[in-house]
Amino acid sequence: MQYQVEINVMPLKELLDPQGKAVEQSLNNLNIHALNVRVGKRIELKIDATSKEEAFELTEQACKKLLYNPVMEFYKITVSEL
Amino acid sequence: MQYQVEINVMPLKELLDPQGKAVEQSLNNLNIHALNVRVGKRIELKIDATSKEEAFELTEQACKKLLYNPVMEFYKITVSEL
Repeated sequence: MQYQVEINVMPLKELLDPQGKAVEQSLNNLNIHALNVRVGKRIELKIDATSKEEAFELTEQACKKLLYNPVMEFYKITVSEL
Repeated sequence: MQYQVEINVMPLKELLDPQGKAVEQSLNNLNIHALNVRVGKRIELKIDATSKEEAFELTEQACKKLLYNPVMEFYKITVSEL
């Protein structure tokens, strides 16, 4: 079966996020008062698996081997049936 | 009131996404068979507004003025109360 997977990779809360800070300042210059701006990545994909659990595990492997840097980022996976 | 806002900025479906293609190939090399990989941005922030509707509108302005490129991307906003 095919599953739709969404992965959000965000900078760790304890770390400074310079890109987020830049966006925050630019928004303030536009008179939009935003706080705690964090900029990360979003990856969407389809994956073949026999169950939702397997899809989740495969995605977790993908994150660990390729998609996220544990020193600076954390990830969150959402799996839904197609 | 403060609202938590999440913005997903993804490449338009009609366009090639070279970064997504690269991730797809790398995942296949790791024996994880993913399809239709798309890589975009995710922005999380807090915003001050008097209502959920105002928070949504401010975020939409932020997207149009700063965060997305209409030629290549589309965005999706989620607003939730804190």
